[in-house]
Amino acid sequence: MEGFSLDLLDQPESLEQILVDCRDTLKYGVRTGHPRFFNQLSTGLDIIGLAGEWLTSTANTNMFTYEIAPVFVLMEQITLKKMREMVGWPDGEGDGIFSPGETPPNSFKRRTSKPKSHFSIKKASATLGFGTENLILLKTDQRGRVIPDDLEAKVIDAKRKGYVPLFVNATAGTTVYGAFDPINEIADICEKHNIWLHVDGAWGGGLLMSRKHRHKLSGIERANSVTWNPHKMMGVPLQCSAVLVRERGLLQGCNSMCAGYLFQPDKQYDVTYDTGDKAIQCGRHVDIFKFWLMWKAKGTEGFEQHIDRCLELSTYLYQKIRNRDGYEMVFEGEPQHTNICFWYVPPSLRGLRDVEERRQRLHKVAPKIKAMMMESGTTMVGYQPQGDKVNFFRMVISNPAANRSDIDFLIDEIERLGQDC
Amino acid sequence: MEGFSLDLLDQPESLEQILVDCRDTLKYGVRTGHPRFFNQLSTGLDIIGLAGEWLTSTANTNMFTYEIAPVFVLMEQITLKKMREMVGWPDGEGDGIFSPGETPPNSFKRRTSKPKSHFSIKKASATLGFGTENLILLKTDQRGRVIPDDLEAKVIDAKRKGYVPLFVNATAGTTVYGAFDPINEIADICEKHNIWLHVDGAWGGGLLMSRKHRHKLSGIERANSVTWNPHKMMGVPLQCSAVLVRERGLLQGCNSMCAGYLFQPDKQYDVTYDTGDKAIQCGRHVDIFKFWLMWKAKGTEGFEQHIDRCLELSTYLYQKIRNRDGYEMVFEGEPQHTNICFWYVPPSLRGLRDVEERRQRLHKVAPKIKAMMMESGTTMVGYQPQGDKVNFFRMVISNPAANRSDIDFLIDEIERLGQDC
Repeated sequence: MEGFSLDLLDQPESLEQILVDCRDTLKYGVRTGHPRFFNQLSTGLDIIGLAGEWLTSTANTNMFTYEIAPVFVLMEQITLKKMREMVGWPDGEGDGIFSPGETPPNSFKRRTSKPKSHFSIKKASATLGFGTENLILLKTDQRGRVIPDDLEAKVIDAKRKGYVPLFVNATAGTTVYGAFDPINEIADICEKHNIWLHVDGAWGGGLLMSRKHRHKLSGIERANSVTWNPHKMMGVPLQCSAVLVRERGLLQGCNSMCAGYLFQPDKQYDVTYDTGDKAIQCGRHVDIFKFWLMWKAKGTEGFEQHIDRCLELSTYLYQKIRNRDGYEMVFEGEPQHTNICFWYVPPSLRGLRDVEERRQRLHKVAPKIKAMMMESGTTMVGYQPQGDKVNFFRMVISNPAANRSDIDFLIDEIERLGQDC
Repeated sequence: MEGFSLDLLDQPESLEQILVDCRDTLKYGVRTGHPRFFNQLSTGLDIIGLAGEWLTSTANTNMFTYEIAPVFVLMEQITLKKMREMVGWPDGEGDGIFSPGETPPNSFKRRTSKPKSHFSIKKASATLGFGTENLILLKTDQRGRVIPDDLEAKVIDAKRKGYVPLFVNATAGTTVYGAFDPINEIADICEKHNIWLHVDGAWGGGLLMSRKHRHKLSGIERANSVTWNPHKMMGVPLQCSAVLVRERGLLQGCNSMCAGYLFQPDKQYDVTYDTGDKAIQCGRHVDIFKFWLMWKAKGTEGFEQHIDRCLELSTYLYQKIRNRDGYEMVFEGEPQHTNICFWYVPPSLRGLRDVEERRQRLHKVAPKIKAMMMESGTTMVGYQPQGDKVNFFRMVISNPAANRSDIDFLIDEIERLGQDC
């Protein structure tokens, strides 16, 4: 706040000052497009996507009616259909919408309980009035994948108690471990008990673009609904989140309130092109164009190459550290997504016998190293505790600009900064 | 769809084709920044705001944590405080957030029933699990303003039936009529019965910037919460919607779910700067910068001039048509906002005695004229029916580029196209 004056005044500033403010805003900001920024699922800066976003801002319109966003509405329809084809629904039939944030795409008017994983599910449950106490959490294996037997036991138990389980969330690519739930086995249980199956592919959905990796989402075509955020693994500028549903007309049926001043039935065009009443919100930002333009420019194959490349890079990291001195992996086995979760154990802790003391001291290592990374401004990577596990690093790779030298740098930097922890 | 190829292919397109696609997208789009585009509450294209949005896209970050959006988070805090000061809360104290769309800002976890007006209230009620049947609609006068006696009678009646009225929505600037509810009288009733008072100032909030017009929101400082969309009357590029609450810490308390991988308590900075857990959604687009930059560049006085000018222009339109042949006003009296609602009665209907036939034919006039406007591409203005009133035009003015000649043009165009209706 000492860097520049943020205060808003009665009088206008000069244009020169405005330009200084713009420069300062970038100067003091975080370079999320830098190949050594590994802090979030969304990284990188695709230039075609950026051009698309600039055009979108210039068009300055709203998705709610065809009459003011005719081209964007058509692009959205075509892109959603293409995404549903990739999910595997026959002829790409169904419904869908691009909607901001994670929680709204993970929300339905008639939905409740029984997820694991992303906290948006918990928020949706609270927001929709079901209450977080009606969410039943599932057990997962050491890799973070739902255990189907546990799901079925909990469904049966809930029914016996008189509850009506109506919604199961399977995650394709969890946020921390990058785990893919076994969708086919979950779908079997959902079909047997007549439960809505949602697949949260916000992070892992992008793997559908890769012939090599899409098997990890095998069974997704049996889901009733899917979320998929192209702004994550596919490198589309923020935000770009889609919800897809298999049943045609469902979104309109759920959310429609028919505001007369927007959705007049007597327009001169086919008013089913007016998408505004499908969404929970009224105004809706144009999130489609940048994605459509990137898809045009890269082709499906371009996305495939990007995804394959990021996954290769994470395998490189995994192989580099799994047997390296001072590193411990949080879970065993090859990574399913680009998430690599690990502890860095500084030399001072390596010989420590007291398990509890070691835990307590190890818990403080990742925050300390990250604070130093941020102060030196060299790289950024996330950390968190999970369950009974103390703070560990979570590396994720989604930036097309990242390469092996950036991974090497990260390891060197962790060791340099962690030397004296 | 014949105009250009929207299809997405496996192979990449050439850069030349991508540029053609960009040109076509703008060519077939609607020019919402044109001074004769009167179709929505959001019109115009502020160049500083656009520059702000371009910088925002380039920064490509997310509002949920301070660590990846430090400058934007501070700008948001300062701007929200300034907005709360304009609302009139002591020292600008309270809480708030910028959040996309209208429904989320009009939503709270612990809220229900008793609004009139914007359909987002109905959506919020359905989404939050209260059910639309627990919304009680209020009577309004011929100008669209809530009648306080009706509110109080309905509160008393609901209590007598064992219900607990807990939320009243007052609107400052309704979407169609531009009506301002009498906030002070409504606040008296809310205080007496201990009901949360929300003021939906999405459209009318901008008038707080004008010393001449802010009296229309008199009493807003007594509200518990306020929505205010700078992307409407203040000309900020889409989207920019704020919700303000008087009670500090409320948003965090309501929406917090504490996702460990985002909101680590052991960061090296004050984690109350992490705003992500205040919102219903997880990822949150940076909507603040363009607004902050415009405020810097214009000063509060610049917004005031813009608002005063738009309201003057609507008075010009009102005075021009209220006694003009072929025009009938939908409600009596000077406009409160820039909304001017009127019927254009073509010559063929002017002598018609059969009231019902006249109604039915008049109902078709606005859609017909609008379809011709869109086909000739000269101007755009909204219409809708309301209650027992057949389709009428709703003019709104929010574009700083509009001037009297554009208003004159609109009238000429309606008469030219409506001549033979």
